[in-house]
Amino acid sequence: MLPDPIKKFAEEFSKLPSIGPRQATRLAFYISSLGKNKIKEITDVISGLNNLETCPRCFRTHSPSTSSGQAGKAKLCGICSDPTRSKSIIAIVEKETDLMSLEKTKKFNGWYLIIGELHKNGELEPEQKLRLSALKSFIKKELNGHSTSSGQAKADEIILAVNPTIYGDLNASLLKKELAEYAGKITRLGRGIPTGGEIEFADEETLGQAIDKRG
Amino acid sequence: MLPDPIKKFAEEFSKLPSIGPRQATRLAFYISSLGKNKIKEITDVISGLNNLETCPRCFRTHSPSTSSGQAGKAKLCGICSDPTRSKSIIAIVEKETDLMSLEKTKKFNGWYLIIGELHKNGELEPEQKLRLSALKSFIKKELNGHSTSSGQAKADEIILAVNPTIYGDLNASLLKKELAEYAGKITRLGRGIPTGGEIEFADEETLGQAIDKRG
Repeated sequence: MLPDPIKKFAEEFSKLPSIGPRQATRLAFYISSLGKNKIKEITDVISGLNNLETCPRCFRTHSPSTSSGQAGKAKLCGICSDPTRSKSIIAIVEKETDLMSLEKTKKFNGWYLIIGELHKNGELEPEQKLRLSALKSFIKKELNGHSTSSGQAKADEIILAVNPTIYGDLNASLLKKELAEYAGKITRLGRGIPTGGEIEFADEETLGQAIDKRG
Repeated sequence: MLPDPIKKFAEEFSKLPSIGPRQATRLAFYISSLGKNKIKEITDVISGLNNLETCPRCFRTHSPSTSSGQAGKAKLCGICSDPTRSKSIIAIVEKETDLMSLEKTKKFNGWYLIIGELHKNGELEPEQKLRLSALKSFIKKELNGHSTSSGQAKADEIILAVNPTIYGDLNASLLKKELAEYAGKITRLGRGIPTGGEIEFADEETLGQAIDKRG
């Protein structure tokens, strides 16, 4: 019944997060009605996403600028290469959009680790374990000046900026156990955010208060 | 703050119907994380939408088969070129997806005119006027056998399959006035569909009843 190109588009796009099969079908008809030039513009912006890199420290997606870093080596993003930011305070967030929301409050001057969306079963994916290991070895190597009497290098603080939900609580205690030896204190965002809500949808004011009242 | 390719993607995609800026941004990060091969697959399905044609009779989007029609001339779609379907009963729908919903009921054996989404101010766009003119001249040329004593060619019936909303009612009376001389009777779908709802979301059963009870 559906033309083949529409069907293929709908199949592909309904795999994307938060796009259902019906919306995908409507999008296909809509885009097909826009004509060749507009379709080219759309495929161009998607191909443009190929030019992004992942920051090897915080795992943020960024456009590598030509000036920073060495050729052939993954480059640090703008936040991680900013010398004015404190290296000893680290916020662990699940998603890029959570990071962006925190940055907008202008209340946080440390750096980030994007861990990826956490499972509801309280287990970490292999990729998430790798990212935690990267964080631990960064702390060991780069934060020697902060080492305690025991000789163990520690960050001053790790903020577990995960959603204030039941699953977030579960995952926060998991991460807290993993990182206990690596930080002077491990905090979470203040519960200014309504319980059950999501970081991404909080307004800047609420989120700013949540940073102030973390603990 | 956002990497340039993400920003461009989000700008382009939030212009599409039912995609907001926030969803577009999340999609951009998601797609960029899929890697080059997957990004190529996605741009391919979009480019595939270039291979579609608009049926010159019902204005449906379809994949022209190589067998039907003459070269260089726009080809009729599968429904309009089906000799078993009655030419003298015509359903006017707003969207492709409305047509698809009606086809699924298997209760309608006429053909369609896709008029495009109707405005809330009760005025037709130039393109919509062209489509109505195309319908009128089709009726004049092809339905001569049905001409009444006055000599005017008429369709047996035109079903105004527009949404049963206030705006749908407004637009239906507009279309009824336009087409009064061109059909033996002009009907609307039976109000089996809950008032305020949309054709696209009705289940097949309800929509089948609505076809039975049209009038």
